[in-house]
Amino acid sequence: MTVQLKTAVEELLSKVKSIVSLSAQAEDYLVGIAKETRISKGSVLIRQGDVVNKIYFVTGGCLRSYCVDQSGREHTLQFAVKDWWMSDYIALHNNERATLTVECLNDATVIEFNAQKLNEVLTLFPEYEPFQRYILERHVVSLHKRILNQMQLTASERYQLFLDQYPDIERHTRNYHIASFLGITQESLSRIRAEKVKR
Amino acid sequence: MTVQLKTAVEELLSKVKSIVSLSAQAEDYLVGIAKETRISKGSVLIRQGDVVNKIYFVTGGCLRSYCVDQSGREHTLQFAVKDWWMSDYIALHNNERATLTVECLNDATVIEFNAQKLNEVLTLFPEYEPFQRYILERHVVSLHKRILNQMQLTASERYQLFLDQYPDIERHTRNYHIASFLGITQESLSRIRAEKVKR
Repeated sequence: MTVQLKTAVEELLSKVKSIVSLSAQAEDYLVGIAKETRISKGSVLIRQGDVVNKIYFVTGGCLRSYCVDQSGREHTLQFAVKDWWMSDYIALHNNERATLTVECLNDATVIEFNAQKLNEVLTLFPEYEPFQRYILERHVVSLHKRILNQMQLTASERYQLFLDQYPDIERHTRNYHIASFLGITQESLSRIRAEKVKR
Repeated sequence: MTVQLKTAVEELLSKVKSIVSLSAQAEDYLVGIAKETRISKGSVLIRQGDVVNKIYFVTGGCLRSYCVDQSGREHTLQFAVKDWWMSDYIALHNNERATLTVECLNDATVIEFNAQKLNEVLTLFPEYEPFQRYILERHVVSLHKRILNQMQLTASERYQLFLDQYPDIERHTRNYHIASFLGITQESLSRIRAEKVKR
């Protein structure tokens, strides 16, 4: 018996179709603009200052988006692992240059979309709208939680929550990635880890 | 000559119609579920622990959403002034009880929607979807900016940005509201203000 493995694009289509009914035309259009791509560790997909015209759906590995402040310090906005979308949404929605850099933390596979073409799905096939709304609503929830957690939890609690949310992430990341996501110094992160081991 | 002033609901409809074309039926439905309401200062619209079934569109005054941590300290997630939407979106989208409290900081006017009925607009009149998407995209942008600013700017820079974004807000708010939005103590806020006056 041969088991037919689903391609990444087929998997994404299944997810879309679990939320909305797609016509065969809409499906063909999506397949036509979806570009499965391997990205090697260290690659930069979007660079601060770029015109942004790509949206990535991660199917394996880990991407990170971050900004660099005036003193050269990096601040991590988001990690994207399997099934997360990644881009510079401020740039995309405000039609501005990128304020973020998006890099590949280790070898990753993504489905790359041209942002304009992905946006056209919504005009050509309005039945796709509820899926887009679903993605945006999930994104809003995750950002609200991120802000509230940052305000009300201790660094140690935030670290634990971070590990719960991204169980596999320490395989992909270096200390300063995580510290700069949690908004703490690397020294604080090391202290928190040491205390966690003692317990 | 009599000048016919637009009602708040008509103003909101104009905004919707600047983004999407609405059928007469969709317009009637929206008008039918929109409830113009005056809210007096200090009223609580959503309380932590509540089942959340309301979404508010602010037409005057100022609402605030906040959470209370284990030690009883308040953390402000959002202020909503004219033309902003307000609810507990984590609760709404996750179908959970409210983690936020939404209060009225001074006498306000809002259009109150039953969340379920507002959601049904999207099923009954899919032409409304691009407006909802527009609102969600603006929301994501504002949340991304809030997180990035919190990470990379000094408290003093954040305060200045806050005043730029909400020019009129100090009329509505008390010191601890602003401090708890910026993530600083009231003493720090007073110091920043004093330095600003000196300059």
